[in-house]
Amino acid sequence: MYLDSAATAQKPQIVLDALTDYYINQNANVHRGLYQLAFQATEDYEKIRQQVGEFVGVNADNIVFTRGTTEALNLVASSFGPLVVHPDSEILVTAAEHHSNFIPWQQLAKRTGAKFVVVPPDDQGIVTTDAIIDHVTAKTAIVAVAQVTNVTGHVVDVARIGQAVHAKGGYLVVDGAQAVAHMPVDMRQLGADFYAFSGHKIYGPTGIGALVGKKQLLQQMPPIAFGGEMIDMVTEAESTWAPSPLKFEAGTPNIAGVFGLSAAITYLTQSDAEAREQHERALLDQLRTGLQAIPGMTVYGDSEGVSVVSFNLAGVHPHDLATYLDEQSIAVRAGHHCAQPLMTQLNIPATVRASVGLYSNEDDVERLLSAVRAAGRYFNESE
Amino acid sequence: MYLDSAATAQKPQIVLDALTDYYINQNANVHRGLYQLAFQATEDYEKIRQQVGEFVGVNADNIVFTRGTTEALNLVASSFGPLVVHPDSEILVTAAEHHSNFIPWQQLAKRTGAKFVVVPPDDQGIVTTDAIIDHVTAKTAIVAVAQVTNVTGHVVDVARIGQAVHAKGGYLVVDGAQAVAHMPVDMRQLGADFYAFSGHKIYGPTGIGALVGKKQLLQQMPPIAFGGEMIDMVTEAESTWAPSPLKFEAGTPNIAGVFGLSAAITYLTQSDAEAREQHERALLDQLRTGLQAIPGMTVYGDSEGVSVVSFNLAGVHPHDLATYLDEQSIAVRAGHHCAQPLMTQLNIPATVRASVGLYSNEDDVERLLSAVRAAGRYFNESE
Repeated sequence: MYLDSAATAQKPQIVLDALTDYYINQNANVHRGLYQLAFQATEDYEKIRQQVGEFVGVNADNIVFTRGTTEALNLVASSFGPLVVHPDSEILVTAAEHHSNFIPWQQLAKRTGAKFVVVPPDDQGIVTTDAIIDHVTAKTAIVAVAQVTNVTGHVVDVARIGQAVHAKGGYLVVDGAQAVAHMPVDMRQLGADFYAFSGHKIYGPTGIGALVGKKQLLQQMPPIAFGGEMIDMVTEAESTWAPSPLKFEAGTPNIAGVFGLSAAITYLTQSDAEAREQHERALLDQLRTGLQAIPGMTVYGDSEGVSVVSFNLAGVHPHDLATYLDEQSIAVRAGHHCAQPLMTQLNIPATVRASVGLYSNEDDVERLLSAVRAAGRYFNESE
Repeated sequence: MYLDSAATAQKPQIVLDALTDYYINQNANVHRGLYQLAFQATEDYEKIRQQVGEFVGVNADNIVFTRGTTEALNLVASSFGPLVVHPDSEILVTAAEHHSNFIPWQQLAKRTGAKFVVVPPDDQGIVTTDAIIDHVTAKTAIVAVAQVTNVTGHVVDVARIGQAVHAKGGYLVVDGAQAVAHMPVDMRQLGADFYAFSGHKIYGPTGIGALVGKKQLLQQMPPIAFGGEMIDMVTEAESTWAPSPLKFEAGTPNIAGVFGLSAAITYLTQSDAEAREQHERALLDQLRTGLQAIPGMTVYGDSEGVSVVSFNLAGVHPHDLATYLDEQSIAVRAGHHCAQPLMTQLNIPATVRASVGLYSNEDDVERLLSAVRAAGRYFNESE
């Protein structure tokens, strides 16, 4: 019983079929060949860029294909960061960020001499939209924040943060890894300058994701990897680059991954967004309410959170609880969830985290609750 | 009829099955979960690292998984380059390098102020082992060279270049993208400091490849992307890294790609290396001899080349020839092959390039030769 979809989602048949179909019927390198198979692969590859754009409310040339969210965020930090961050700048993140949206900015601050500002969480592990906005100053060059944090599932108001950041002349980078599978994402409403997400968390293949960026910013950014179809002209003395987004896609891309991502988006969007949200909301409510009724239970985050619920049972190490659950064939995650700064702030080593996907159901949640209750009795009796 | 395996190889069923099997039976994120499915995925992922190591004669901890050759070479240039390249250093490449093994070094030279030395080719487009060694000086910090060049298929003696470079205190980086599918590669014999290759050119999936590196060098290198399981400890003030190779694998890796790569290596190594080489040698000899008999034909490279044969027909633009062949359903590549500096040296805009794989046969080659002969007549009559 799989309740770790926030780590990686299980894949629908349509995604597996897309991968197999690509390799059997369309396998050719893209942007290179002068034959039908290569033309068709290239055309479809670029059509999918458009599909991904439409999925998040932008044009195709706003989409850079990456290995995933982590590569996308690192690309922004490495390429865009130095263009706008100076020694007297501030880079703002929250204590609830995933390491992938924390360390790149921490390291950028170290390289540039900028001040690294970390907005602290409340007792529940939540960094509120207001707390983030309160920390934005005229020196804030970049705010990097997860739309949905991966420990508590808390959702911030990206649009409101964006307005506050832009009003002070800064830029907003959003980690959408935990958001895109669980809510409609429309860049026209969010107004973020950059938005990153992974295919494998939205029912797609591993090794593919996207950086969504404003065109004029992507155009200004230098490439950070070189080779393949990202070039315009190469002489011994110098090289010039293709326009973005190709400028950022050095080497043969994960072509099959792009085809699989397309199928995943088709899968995700074929059902009604509101129905998807209601389905997952009901499961998370059931889970949160059930957990809170268990003696000695701490549930982090707020009841508006999506995707995940993190919790700890008094006197039981989260790793022991997860191992107990695994013995019941229940897969949940336990650990720091790549969010060590948040664990430090909460003064805990780890949490147990259950997360849901479209295929999760009430029985899954009830079975988890029942097993956690049994674990509580088991560990208390053992003492 | 596919004669463009040097761009990307077609995939055997065993690779497609490995991808599907992973997603259906083993799909979990690696190095994160505390449940059986995740343990098993992680254990198998790391076993494959060992398999890839054995494939090229090194240990598992010498293998960094990357998206492909381009990312691997860029990683060395970005992370290792600055450790050994100084303003008075020389960085040596050949004019026959793929852009992916040319531009990263050109840009590193620009950033560091080092001298960028490009070894010129002979009339056939070949940069010989001797020519490369002749350019190595006491100032040479890094030599970056393809074991097999992708335009002519010329094979250099990596071991001999390595000895020359090491004798002068420099380091050798090898682009193995066109080599690994066509000859046994044993790092113990080659002695290169870094070696890069792609999965998709050895019958594996797109989006996966490897950097092979000497352990003590990988240990010295700083990571260039941050997040996920590449960390040790993260505080607000600073972060420390996991040991290599994990240090270089930020974010969720292309896990399915790794499983597919494993199947590709199994496919490749289940047949006898010598038999594979003889099969491809016979096809390339047939192709080269057949082409040379056609009036107005220029064939580049030497008869010892592997993987590819590049050619041009007098009076016919290579793109026109490739398009003519495409109309006969023959897929060959025409263009600069991501090797503009070599095209410039040879004073040609492009070549037509045919390349073979394990599944290519005499009929494929004969059909290509027959079509090229017909093209010669067709274009001459049109004039």
